[in-house]
Amino acid sequence: MVYKYIDIVGTSPKGTDYAIKNAIQEASKTVKNIQWAELGRVTVKVDKQKLEYQAEVRIGFKVQRSGND
Amino acid sequence: MVYKYIDIVGTSPKGTDYAIKNAIQEASKTVKNIQWAELGRVTVKVDKQKLEYQAEVRIGFKVQRSGND
Amino acid sequence: MVYKYIDIVGTSPKGTDYAIKNAIQEASKTVKNIQWAELGRVTVKVDKQKLEYQAEVRIGFKVQRSGND
Amino acid sequence: MVYKYIDIVGTSPKGTDYAIKNAIQEASKTVKNIQWAELGRVTVKVDKQKLEYQAEVRIGFKVQRSGND
Amino acid sequence: MVYKYIDIVGTSPKGTDYAIKNAIQEASKTVKNIQWAELGRVTVKVDKQKLEYQAEVRIGFKVQRSGND
Amino acid sequence: MVYKYIDIVGTSPKGTDYAIKNAIQEASKTVKNIQWAELGRVTVKVDKQKLEYQAEVRIGFKVQRSGND
Amino acid sequence: MVYKYIDIVGTSPKGTDYAIKNAIQEASKTVKNIQWAELGRVTVKVDKQKLEYQAEVRIGFKVQRSGND
Amino acid sequence: MVYKYIDIVGTSPKGTDYAIKNAIQEASKTVKNIQWAELGRVTVKVDKQKLEYQAEVRIGFKVQRSGND
Amino acid sequence: MVYKYIDIVGTSPKGTDYAIKNAIQEASKTVKNIQWAELGRVTVKVDKQKLEYQAEVRIGFKVQRSGND
Amino acid sequence: MVYKYIDIVGTSPKGTDYAIKNAIQEASKTVKNIQWAELGRVTVKVDKQKLEYQAEVRIGFKVQRSGND
Amino acid sequence: MVYKYIDIVGTSPKGTDYAIKNAIQEASKTVKNIQWAELGRVTVKVDKQKLEYQAEVRIGFKVQRSGND
Amino acid sequence: MVYKYIDIVGTSPKGTDYAIKNAIQEASKTVKNIQWAELGRVTVKVDKQKLEYQAEVRIGFKVQRSGND
Repeated sequence: MVYKYIDIVGTSPKGTDYAIKNAIQEASKTVKNIQWAELGRVTVKVDKQKLEYQAEVRIGFKVQRSGND
Repeated sequence: MVYKYIDIVGTSPKGTDYAIKNAIQEASKTVKNIQWAELGRVTVKVDKQKLEYQAEVRIGFKVQRSGND
Repeated sequence: MVYKYIDIVGTSPKGTDYAIKNAIQEASKTVKNIQWAELGRVTVKVDKQKLEYQAEVRIGFKVQRSGND
Repeated sequence: MVYKYIDIVGTSPKGTDYAIKNAIQEASKTVKNIQWAELGRVTVKVDKQKLEYQAEVRIGFKVQRSGND
Repeated sequence: MVYKYIDIVGTSPKGTDYAIKNAIQEASKTVKNIQWAELGRVTVKVDKQKLEYQAEVRIGFKVQRSGND
Repeated sequence: MVYKYIDIVGTSPKGTDYAIKNAIQEASKTVKNIQWAELGRVTVKVDKQKLEYQAEVRIGFKVQRSGND
Repeated sequence: MVYKYIDIVGTSPKGTDYAIKNAIQEASKTVKNIQWAELGRVTVKVDKQKLEYQAEVRIGFKVQRSGND
Repeated sequence: MVYKYIDIVGTSPKGTDYAIKNAIQEASKTVKNIQWAELGRVTVKVDKQKLEYQAEVRIGFKVQRSGND
Repeated sequence: MVYKYIDIVGTSPKGTDYAIKNAIQEASKTVKNIQWAELGRVTVKVDKQKLEYQAEVRIGFKVQRSGND
Repeated sequence: MVYKYIDIVGTSPKGTDYAIKNAIQEASKTVKNIQWAELGRVTVKVDKQKLEYQAEVRIGFKVQRSGND
Repeated sequence: MVYKYIDIVGTSPKGTDYAIKNAIQEASKTVKNIQWAELGRVTVKVDKQKLEYQAEVRIGFKVQRSGND
Repeated sequence: MVYKYIDIVGTSPKGTDYAIKNAIQEASKTVKNIQWAELGRVTVKVDKQKLEYQAEVRIGFKVQRSGND
């Protein structure tokens, strides 16, 4: 079994969990077999009264592999 | 005054805060006098469309102690 | 362009995102031109059944500056 | 689902992997449902020509829990 | 040989070293064969003019083990 | 409740604890309601035989705030 | 000269070094000119008596580049 | 809005800033909408009298996305 | 002797060292007796072909203090 | 008692543990009374199919000292 | 001006500050022009009731250098 | 192959890259076969209007070794 990581920043005005969810959703468009995600830095972009939560997320997915260990 | 730590991973499909809450709730079943909790790594287990938030939480509780410093 | 940081701990019984929001709101009372915020340590103060989320937030704001680079 | 961590230092003259294995084996004597282990600091105790590998290992195990999230 | 860790916060109004000592003393009430302690975060609780030093200490103790590596 | 941080380096020829104490004492001249302090990097300035302990201390104090969460 | 990184988790029941080797082997299927690899977090998945070593590996490879610095 | 990261090591005999610039320039050959870059580890390869500065750079770029948060 | 820290992000299109210099220059407008500065995170804002180097700088300055240790 | 550290990178085609062993063996040629070693970064140099494991090792040894504490 | 570092572990039964002092004292036997020391990890060796404080100290000293920058 | 590290702080009024260069130059006076250098903390000593850049640099050099792995 081999896994790969991609690093994505999801954003949402609704909160950190939504930002994480968006990052995973985006990742699922280009990779299959996502197994887990790990939260990195969380930042908030502030534009006057409006906040946008930004979550750096490292996403792990399984690589289809033929061969033996 | 002396405090001890235990390390728990709480999980919840509803979000990080709920995962933290569950960790604290679990801890309260075996230790008394919980004072604070500190969030560690946050990961998300991804099972197709279903997400499960997992929060590593370090929980601090007061130890009943007789004696003087 | 020059930015400055201030470090604030926002709190809320409702969750981490609210605690972050409160920190930014507090900062906006004393500084202008807030651009972004970065989440640091998250702790939870536990008082029996009541939880209070506490979010250390580093807030970046633009400094009005005359002069050239 | 809730998990707990215990921190153990396994040792072995044969190498790091054996030291990790011993830590897990020791943990399995007191806790059930071990799910994963994470390697921390690795040190080697040197006694003249003899080496002893020491692996700090954080071990995660599932807590049997009744109740709902 | 296998070691285990427990994490304790010792406190003392007299200083950091005393806080460490109290943490070790507390640990010695419940575990035997303490070998070493490692200092983590040091905080000071401030109550007007009164300071209380708090030392997070990770304590390592030898586990009695039958069996071979 | 909202808290703010200021970062101060206290110094003392007598030792680390005294250096921390001096940092807190200095902070108390400009801010009220100091709640806790956290020790950061500790350095020692060496001038021939004379040592000066320097303690980086992050000091947290309560902000008086009107309004609701 | 320019290098790129990809992050892969190699796994093996035989040990950490084999897990690293598998990660590099996997990477070599999609990128050329691998120069070095750096070991990150090491975890062990525990399934009853069976262990699977998992090694996070950051792999650096040379990018073919025309142009001058 | 969603962003992705790629990790590149730029190099230059002229200095760190040039190495960063080369990393960004390389990235711009394969991805569009680069927004920012963050400097990681800086190393210098030494070949007798000749130095080559190497800058690990994490590059963030905007992903074109249809859909709503 | 007591020192205080302020955290500033200096920027410059010319490079990291210039960004550091600008941060120090800005700080010198509001505080006296700057003694040293420590470089934190370095980022580069990318706007098409134009780069802006941004250097997080922690600036230490001496506090004029009456009293004895 | 006083200890000193030296930092060595051991290498081996056979694996990480061998690389650590080589580092200690090298150290023992120039210093006496080696007590322990601590593993730092592990990298692998990749030359086509050939791997060379490289282990950064910090080695602690006792200094012979006359005098009293 | 050029400085060098050496890494020493000072120990003392009397406390951390004494352990630091002993490390600096030891260093001064082999190097001149010590300027500063920085405290690293602090551990305590526990032998029944007896504690020995151990302070990892990085010591910086000025190198006598002819030549110009 | 075995490598050793030495830790040097190079300084220069002209900038970080020059400070790194000076550290390497200094190291080359006492050790041979320098292979690479890694940048650590960067500080700036401020003396009124004059800046001195200080770069902590870890320098790796090859040890001439007879024997086999």
